[in-house]
Amino acid sequence: MNYIGIDIGGTNIKLALVDLGGEEPAIVSRSSFKFAHMPGDELCARIKEHSEKLCEEAGTDMSAIGGIGLSVPGSIDQTGEILLHAYNMGYHGVALRRQLAKLIPDTEIEMLNDANAAALAELCAGSLKGCRNALLLTIGTGVGSGLILDGRVFNGGQNRGCELGHLPYRNGGEPCTCGQTGCLETYVSATRIARQGRELMGEKYADAKAVLDASVEGNDTARCIIAAYIDDLANVIAGLCCAFDPERIALGGGFSAAGDVLYGPLNRLVAERNFYRVPYDIVPAKFLNDAGVIGAAYQVKLTRQENDTKI
Amino acid sequence: MNYIGIDIGGTNIKLALVDLGGEEPAIVSRSSFKFAHMPGDELCARIKEHSEKLCEEAGTDMSAIGGIGLSVPGSIDQTGEILLHAYNMGYHGVALRRQLAKLIPDTEIEMLNDANAAALAELCAGSLKGCRNALLLTIGTGVGSGLILDGRVFNGGQNRGCELGHLPYRNGGEPCTCGQTGCLETYVSATRIARQGRELMGEKYADAKAVLDASVEGNDTARCIIAAYIDDLANVIAGLCCAFDPERIALGGGFSAAGDVLYGPLNRLVAERNFYRVPYDIVPAKFLNDAGVIGAAYQVKLTRQENDTKI
Repeated sequence: MNYIGIDIGGTNIKLALVDLGGEEPAIVSRSSFKFAHMPGDELCARIKEHSEKLCEEAGTDMSAIGGIGLSVPGSIDQTGEILLHAYNMGYHGVALRRQLAKLIPDTEIEMLNDANAAALAELCAGSLKGCRNALLLTIGTGVGSGLILDGRVFNGGQNRGCELGHLPYRNGGEPCTCGQTGCLETYVSATRIARQGRELMGEKYADAKAVLDASVEGNDTARCIIAAYIDDLANVIAGLCCAFDPERIALGGGFSAAGDVLYGPLNRLVAERNFYRVPYDIVPAKFLNDAGVIGAAYQVKLTRQENDTKI
Repeated sequence: MNYIGIDIGGTNIKLALVDLGGEEPAIVSRSSFKFAHMPGDELCARIKEHSEKLCEEAGTDMSAIGGIGLSVPGSIDQTGEILLHAYNMGYHGVALRRQLAKLIPDTEIEMLNDANAAALAELCAGSLKGCRNALLLTIGTGVGSGLILDGRVFNGGQNRGCELGHLPYRNGGEPCTCGQTGCLETYVSATRIARQGRELMGEKYADAKAVLDASVEGNDTARCIIAAYIDDLANVIAGLCCAFDPERIALGGGFSAAGDVLYGPLNRLVAERNFYRVPYDIVPAKFLNDAGVIGAAYQVKLTRQENDTKI
């Protein structure tokens, strides 16, 4: 069956019609539009228009799809209706799921956090497939976390979320977008590499990829920045291993594609430093730019399956 | 039915015959003996002898009890047989459960980590009763953690444990007994207060309770130490709330009885600082010195109930 997965970001909205009937998720058709600040109802109207277009292109219509999943870059209220805070969209308290459901009635619509969507994509068809307990960290502007416990995405004991990026890492440290200081994400996000690149190497290196490339090319300052970053990331992951003891840890986000220069030392350091002194399996995530649309599509599929089981 | 709960510590072994038939756990009889380093088989022999004595005193015998629970101050292997590391006992790789089962056959015996035992006691009959998702932190020499997820004690995705005390808190910070530096427990254990008491107030104050008492009596240095401690503890709990979003957090260990001087500022700071900006319910644990024996007894009861359900 086909589902629509929508990845809502601060600058871009990506939509895909995803066929989840086979072993691997297959993207049937795609669409996207730019997001500049617009009210929630306008965003929903555009989502509806693009969703219909997606279906048309695939020779089907909205009544034939299994539902719509919304992956959002922020926190969601406990009922799953309201996008509470999406700082990079300027959205605070927007009842996005409810507004879209009014425009597109008789369609199952689910909203979930983007890191949870990515973890679900990895769990269902990616690097975390087959795991009962696993962890996805998406390393980008911040650090998103998707925790798999007992085969399901854990969204907090009271359904508020699972924001491991805001665990305290260095008290009184770097200011975080959440208002606190020293949160884990201020030390292990790609932003940290970019920040140190700018400070130590100049404006041209205010970008994690540029610093990584310079490091691979042998620039000593860049090598220092990357080594110190991996040192912190290893500490963080070793700590999370002592808390969750996951079968596997997948890293998502652009930086996660760094390859051996990242995974070699990282796996070694985490094995040395975790409380249980055992190796953990740290791997790149499978789905990079499509994690949001695929995970959102799976979320609707799983919710429908659960509802069917209940009946 | 009556169960034997045994709390194995670095200096003392406490045993209790616990009646778990009523609404509240009731301790029917107690026993204890000193632990100075002895091999595992000798410890097991003494446990057997004291267990039989416990039963005799209550006018029953071993064949009539529901089983024996062992609460241990260390990490347990994935099979639940071997005490891997209990640093304060000098035990490394001692097959404690298996050795005791050989001495006392035909009796259900379960071994669990002491913080997990304490969390189970609070969940079944204490401050966490009725919670589906909750957290116990025991604040003592170190920081133990018992995490309740979906109504059960979470022991790690691969059954190695859940050692939140070893989450990274300050990279390159205080050395931890686990071999790392800057683990959370080095900053929010009672040991941290004692350490600062000794450093700033002299040898007489190398004790958390002494510093707390001096603080309540108005000693400025002690007030500073306690305020700085609560500040760190609030950061840590706020972080754990953003990760687990628990319904309630209970604090165990001697320091947890500090009362309003602790819970007043702690609840206020955690509400201000957690990612979701909501109040969390932080309370003292109900069972202090008996948490281990009661939790260990419940563990056997629950295991028996699960096994009965399977049949």
